[in-house]
Amino acid sequence: MNTDRLTQQLAFIREIDKLKYIQRKTRLFNSQRHENDAEHSWHLAMMAMVLAEHATTEVDLFKVMKMLLIHDIVEIDAGDTFLYDTTQSHVNTEVELEAAKRIFGLLPEDQMRDFIALWEEFEAGETPEARFAKALDRLEPIMQNASNQGGTWAEYDVPLSRVLEKVQGIRKGSDSLWAYTEDLLRENVENGNLKE
Amino acid sequence: MNTDRLTQQLAFIREIDKLKYIQRKTRLFNSQRHENDAEHSWHLAMMAMVLAEHATTEVDLFKVMKMLLIHDIVEIDAGDTFLYDTTQSHVNTEVELEAAKRIFGLLPEDQMRDFIALWEEFEAGETPEARFAKALDRLEPIMQNASNQGGTWAEYDVPLSRVLEKVQGIRKGSDSLWAYTEDLLRENVENGNLKE
Repeated sequence: MNTDRLTQQLAFIREIDKLKYIQRKTRLFNSQRHENDAEHSWHLAMMAMVLAEHATTEVDLFKVMKMLLIHDIVEIDAGDTFLYDTTQSHVNTEVELEAAKRIFGLLPEDQMRDFIALWEEFEAGETPEARFAKALDRLEPIMQNASNQGGTWAEYDVPLSRVLEKVQGIRKGSDSLWAYTEDLLRENVENGNLKE
Repeated sequence: MNTDRLTQQLAFIREIDKLKYIQRKTRLFNSQRHENDAEHSWHLAMMAMVLAEHATTEVDLFKVMKMLLIHDIVEIDAGDTFLYDTTQSHVNTEVELEAAKRIFGLLPEDQMRDFIALWEEFEAGETPEARFAKALDRLEPIMQNASNQGGTWAEYDVPLSRVLEKVQGIRKGSDSLWAYTEDLLRENVENGNLKE
């Protein structure tokens, strides 16, 4: 055993416990309780495991799941950015890159490089795996909002046009999940959860 | 798209949200806050991703991670059984099997069979993947207790001999993690977190 290597790995494992305190705007299904990033990451990895067959391009599911498990770890330093926030962009901020370097930098160098590459691939959203992973990251809160009388759409007064703009990436990851999303959004406009 | 199939898959995805409410006896690192099963499952999958090289026998990491992500889902119905509970056995109770059938039974049949097989493999603890997964499931709460002035060892008055009896399975999954565990337990006896 290389003790130094194990020591670095265990320091990383202790550090990422903090993801359990990063609270999202979205709430659990049929619930008032906010979701945290660790629960969210688990749920997305489970969604990937169950829904992989719906990816438009065949994906390496193992890679998709690893991406989803780590995709929000930078938020330990950078905080959660709300999808419908009008003042801050979610995409690849300097703060998130610094966070990736610090947190993944706790690992041995080879693992640090692998984790940063995986996170950057997710953020770039260009490979089939990243596109599918991002589709799931968009789909989960839509399902949660639909179960919560509109959830963050109602709470932050977000109209359909803005939702469509923000979640259309689902289309790039999965035709069938996009068809489902369109149906669900239409249903939520009809029942008054989401304004036209 | 097979709509029935997607409908079944999404019903499962909604149902497993309940894992976020299943509270463990163990608390987060350096914290008073109890961990829930979804967070725990995420953390174990991350531990597998980082620590795979320490498995005694080479493992299929993808399988280990899938096992860890689903290993506690039965607790949605069966509840969390505390490792040091003296009245209930954790191992493969009838209630857990019924829970597996009900919850994984929400999925299309082929997926239900795969998930139940994966869960049963974990519970049996005989394959290299199951042994390594179980080692991580034992290691995380030890690290958490060590960070919490003894945590559940102190809270429930559990002596070293009982801890060793319950966590010795770590040895079957990883020599180096077992060596680390022995050191950590000894340290916690010395600092008074764990009684001899």
